[in-house]
Amino acid sequence: MLHPDRFFPADPGMRAIARRLFEHIEPLPLICPHGHTDPAWFAQNAYFADPAQLLIVPDHYILRMLVSQGLSFEELGAPVRGGAALEMDGRAIWRRFAENYHLFRSTPVRHWMDFTLETLFGVEAPLSAKNADDSYDRIAEALTTDALRPRALFERFNIELLATTDSCLDDLAHHSAIADADWAGRVIPTYRPDSVTNPDAPGFAENLMRLGQMTGEDAATWRGMLAAHRRRRQDFIALGATASDHGHPSARTEDLSEADCETLLQAVLSGEASDAQKEAFRGQMLTEMARMSLDDGLVMQLHAGPRRNHSTQVFERFGPDRGFDIPGATNFVDDLRPLLNAVGHDSRLTVILFTLDEAAYGRELAPLAAAYPCLRLGPAWWFFDSPEGMMRYRVLTTETAGYYNTAGFNDDTRALPSIQARHDMARRIDCAFLAHQVAEHRLGEDEAHEVAVDLTYTLAKRAYNLEAVS
Amino acid sequence: MLHPDRFFPADPGMRAIARRLFEHIEPLPLICPHGHTDPAWFAQNAYFADPAQLLIVPDHYILRMLVSQGLSFEELGAPVRGGAALEMDGRAIWRRFAENYHLFRSTPVRHWMDFTLETLFGVEAPLSAKNADDSYDRIAEALTTDALRPRALFERFNIELLATTDSCLDDLAHHSAIADADWAGRVIPTYRPDSVTNPDAPGFAENLMRLGQMTGEDAATWRGMLAAHRRRRQDFIALGATASDHGHPSARTEDLSEADCETLLQAVLSGEASDAQKEAFRGQMLTEMARMSLDDGLVMQLHAGPRRNHSTQVFERFGPDRGFDIPGATNFVDDLRPLLNAVGHDSRLTVILFTLDEAAYGRELAPLAAAYPCLRLGPAWWFFDSPEGMMRYRVLTTETAGYYNTAGFNDDTRALPSIQARHDMARRIDCAFLAHQVAEHRLGEDEAHEVAVDLTYTLAKRAYNLEAVS
Amino acid sequence: MLHPDRFFPADPGMRAIARRLFEHIEPLPLICPHGHTDPAWFAQNAYFADPAQLLIVPDHYILRMLVSQGLSFEELGAPVRGGAALEMDGRAIWRRFAENYHLFRSTPVRHWMDFTLETLFGVEAPLSAKNADDSYDRIAEALTTDALRPRALFERFNIELLATTDSCLDDLAHHSAIADADWAGRVIPTYRPDSVTNPDAPGFAENLMRLGQMTGEDAATWRGMLAAHRRRRQDFIALGATASDHGHPSARTEDLSEADCETLLQAVLSGEASDAQKEAFRGQMLTEMARMSLDDGLVMQLHAGPRRNHSTQVFERFGPDRGFDIPGATNFVDDLRPLLNAVGHDSRLTVILFTLDEAAYGRELAPLAAAYPCLRLGPAWWFFDSPEGMMRYRVLTTETAGYYNTAGFNDDTRALPSIQARHDMARRIDCAFLAHQVAEHRLGEDEAHEVAVDLTYTLAKRAYNLEAVS
Repeated sequence: MLHPDRFFPADPGMRAIARRLFEHIEPLPLICPHGHTDPAWFAQNAYFADPAQLLIVPDHYILRMLVSQGLSFEELGAPVRGGAALEMDGRAIWRRFAENYHLFRSTPVRHWMDFTLETLFGVEAPLSAKNADDSYDRIAEALTTDALRPRALFERFNIELLATTDSCLDDLAHHSAIADADWAGRVIPTYRPDSVTNPDAPGFAENLMRLGQMTGEDAATWRGMLAAHRRRRQDFIALGATASDHGHPSARTEDLSEADCETLLQAVLSGEASDAQKEAFRGQMLTEMARMSLDDGLVMQLHAGPRRNHSTQVFERFGPDRGFDIPGATNFVDDLRPLLNAVGHDSRLTVILFTLDEAAYGRELAPLAAAYPCLRLGPAWWFFDSPEGMMRYRVLTTETAGYYNTAGFNDDTRALPSIQARHDMARRIDCAFLAHQVAEHRLGEDEAHEVAVDLTYTLAKRAYNLEAVS
Repeated sequence: MLHPDRFFPADPGMRAIARRLFEHIEPLPLICPHGHTDPAWFAQNAYFADPAQLLIVPDHYILRMLVSQGLSFEELGAPVRGGAALEMDGRAIWRRFAENYHLFRSTPVRHWMDFTLETLFGVEAPLSAKNADDSYDRIAEALTTDALRPRALFERFNIELLATTDSCLDDLAHHSAIADADWAGRVIPTYRPDSVTNPDAPGFAENLMRLGQMTGEDAATWRGMLAAHRRRRQDFIALGATASDHGHPSARTEDLSEADCETLLQAVLSGEASDAQKEAFRGQMLTEMARMSLDDGLVMQLHAGPRRNHSTQVFERFGPDRGFDIPGATNFVDDLRPLLNAVGHDSRLTVILFTLDEAAYGRELAPLAAAYPCLRLGPAWWFFDSPEGMMRYRVLTTETAGYYNTAGFNDDTRALPSIQARHDMARRIDCAFLAHQVAEHRLGEDEAHEVAVDLTYTLAKRAYNLEAVS
Repeated sequence: MLHPDRFFPADPGMRAIARRLFEHIEPLPLICPHGHTDPAWFAQNAYFADPAQLLIVPDHYILRMLVSQGLSFEELGAPVRGGAALEMDGRAIWRRFAENYHLFRSTPVRHWMDFTLETLFGVEAPLSAKNADDSYDRIAEALTTDALRPRALFERFNIELLATTDSCLDDLAHHSAIADADWAGRVIPTYRPDSVTNPDAPGFAENLMRLGQMTGEDAATWRGMLAAHRRRRQDFIALGATASDHGHPSARTEDLSEADCETLLQAVLSGEASDAQKEAFRGQMLTEMARMSLDDGLVMQLHAGPRRNHSTQVFERFGPDRGFDIPGATNFVDDLRPLLNAVGHDSRLTVILFTLDEAAYGRELAPLAAAYPCLRLGPAWWFFDSPEGMMRYRVLTTETAGYYNTAGFNDDTRALPSIQARHDMARRIDCAFLAHQVAEHRLGEDEAHEVAVDLTYTLAKRAYNLEAVS
């Protein structure tokens, strides 16, 4: 099922170059500086539950596709608010997925799943109604073995470092447990403060009060709130964090006076803030986080663009992260200017930008990253974490920003078993891109070998300040 | 002139795959669920007039290109308002086209015309000043034969079903005549209400009054107007219609209270409505049409984006549809939300989306279609109904939306003789895309064969509710 | 280092076609209708200074990339306002560039520089810390020879005509000197009035007064200002100018009454104008320039999109044109409408459009250019003057606008030594595009040969009204 030349260019000359490049980078360890795996897995190292709960129910890529073709969240086992009836039988859920496997043809889910099924579970044919039960049994059996426990997967995948993404309100107990454990795997947290920087987050005011309590600061005042963040960031840093992460609907930043900031905070705390004030608050908090980074060295990630919870009905019944986050146009050139003018030339700062608006790659992001010393381009994200998406990313950014203003690969996954599949695809696509450059005599093959190593390994470590640590 | 491998990838390995895929789908019948051919042709089955009147004068792709290079509408025979002098000699018009045939190099007009000239009229060389008269004579002669009459072309092209696009104010006399005729061809109408849903349409208020008269409803009230639509849709359904079609400058939808709707209707009827009110009225009418579809089952098509009649001078002298409709940026993610939140999860609804803003393919349209069960993506439209346009459509939508959230091909043509040429190109490009997937081991060739049949035949029938009928 | 097949497709069949096409156009003379070389070079024909001052310090592509990776403008020798210390040693600057040459991998700077170094200076290996001194010495020595003086380069490159870009306030002394010189090279000026049409230009009001003085008109009144422009344009025309050039943040045009224009002029002269008034003034001036073109025949170039001087700090310390101009989204369809409705159908007018927003190529620019007789598409610009950028330009515009609504190539360079490199790349990419068309049987090879000549030579001469003159 997995062809050794998958994702390489069809042209025999280019394919041969891609093979040579890939051969050198395939054995490199995996750097995973951004993702959404659960630190509890590595802390507790428990066996995973049934195949559907592991591979289908938590995966919004899969849920949305099946829902788009008429299946219901309930029959896919997705928890419903209010506790309405839902499918609890993992085998029944797996059968529905297998019967509809054709829907995923030529999508990344298909590529990741084929790789995972074959390499971890020895399941070789594409899934179908016919082999649903057999594949379910095989996977269920494998999940009872030690080879499929979280730490074993981490080691099997040759992961050098993995960062999770953690609410700034998280007690980090799992990360502490990992640090204290008799296990060599490096799993570190990432500071994600969206629940207290986005006034539209559920429970925003209460969240801020909780931040205050956790840090002994008065988070109901501007200065107190900033101090609270500074303290909490230190807690994360103590457990190895090198980065913060910010998920915003736009890339809007602000650089307001302290008095205006205080007014804004009181407005958003009152629950009466206008949409414009909420947006300004989010924007100001990005600039504040950048300022904190100057002192504590956390690399800042900005994931801008998604309009979250587009379907009110899905959000109200099934909650967030169910596949109904839809991207929109994003204006980086105007929105980032306040932050960049405030701190964009300070050599202590790194800001890694992610977009869901590919029109911005060549028009805004590559020109910005190829000018401001603090900026790096994060890899193709979410909907574009796919063969063509990754290829467009390279095609649309490289001629302006080069390779060295990019930040390597992120697997960005909630699905631990798919991590190797995702890195495998990214490495192959980068080799395909480089093979094209070499075959058209735009780059020497010796240089392409160097670049391939950098894209796979070096740049991620450098962008996320992981070099010293390793 | 027509190479058997046209539009297939140049790489020999990919080309061989494309050939194998195409061989299986080439003989499939044509499904034509959206287009602008004239039902009178099939009702009356008259001989076509001279070559220029058939192939050039009504074709806005051709007129705009020749005008862009300095020719005048008058010398191309395009009817002028006010009755100014214009070229009436078909041969002279044909000569101007032939002399300027190089302007169309690498454009779809060239591909369609070459196919049409060779397959229908035996004209083999590219047109030129030199062969203009000869080709004109050949075509003129052929048009006097029964083989070139509308029904003969329909059969020759192996059309299984063809939908025209008809004003909701049309009396459908031609469609009735076709239904009553002793002819097996299936030609059905499509409900297009723009003249009464767009307050900027010429004669908008009078049109609405006429809708009221045709249905016996009081179209000057909100409820009466909706009732009038419901009745008129039944007239179309009785003649086989399975779809409505909506051409709007944006994708804006609304979900207003009935009181606000009534106020809006009165404002647009008064002729004093603001641009914002007109836009809101169009948006509300889309949601109303979607609600009607829940009951009567018509599939809804939304063609959003063109700024119509960009040149005031051309519009005033030569009227609409003369090639001066220019697309603009389109925001589907915010604009469709009211409609989707109102009825987007109802399994009775299908909405097929068309765009002229390719930036929306990957950013908005594929994510929306891969989530909401009602949404399907219409094929590459208008300016993008071309080899590279179709290829970009697949490349930019497939990895997120898969194949099964797309709606097959539409020829969308006003030019009956070009129908086969358009389907031929679309099928070849889909095979080229699939060959790329197979050659890079992203999809099995057996699966690609299935997909090719679906893209060519099955998906169009399914999306337009044509399955039961066939 | 320079492979004879560079930039040609890797597929052997396509490559062979590309070679055949290129063989015919490689010897054609260079038409350079738009660029930023210094007329003083050709007037004085002095020897160039050291390698760094010639090849690095004035090149914003190079400076921004090095700055983006942490080097300072000062250590690259970029003049600082206020006279702070900066690197004056050309060899030290050259070393920094050579050490960081990997940053430019797969960017146009690399392609241009490799070509220039090998063909002009015999430097063959990619630059590196190792060969920095040796390459510096070779270049420095070559620059002392007559073969590297400006006129010799002009002749060596086989330039048929070169246009510079000159402020409307320039005294054109260098152009007069060139005209009077005993030298056959054709170097002509281009009328660039931004300093008096953009109220945000430094010294705007003083600039306008100076325009008045130069022409004997009262530039403080609307009519007087227009008269001043008309006179100044004649001065340029007398020295061979065939075009004006307009660099604007947007494509906004206006068509206001004379009274409104007068009010607008007084507002912008007062220094109290709002941003909206400044934008309206720029927009109105574009329409006025188009009207003047109807009479004096100057072809109008519109370079729209860059947000200039994005970094306040860089602008204040190092001035404009330092690599911190970042593009933004550009709306041509609405913005150009006033100008097009005023004069867009007048056959005396040619407007050549350039964009930094590739999303507009297929959505707006190609449809506009394939309709309005006055419009032509300028080549891929600035960030997109690169192999993939040029290829996307052809792919995204050709199917709608064809080849004959485009304006050939511009090298657009400030770097005289790179002119041949730039034309070489453009010709090769056009051949690669055409080879793809031929290999997929979309265009006959005989026709592709004609098109290749047109794209390389004919179209630029035609678009810029250079045909009569040659």
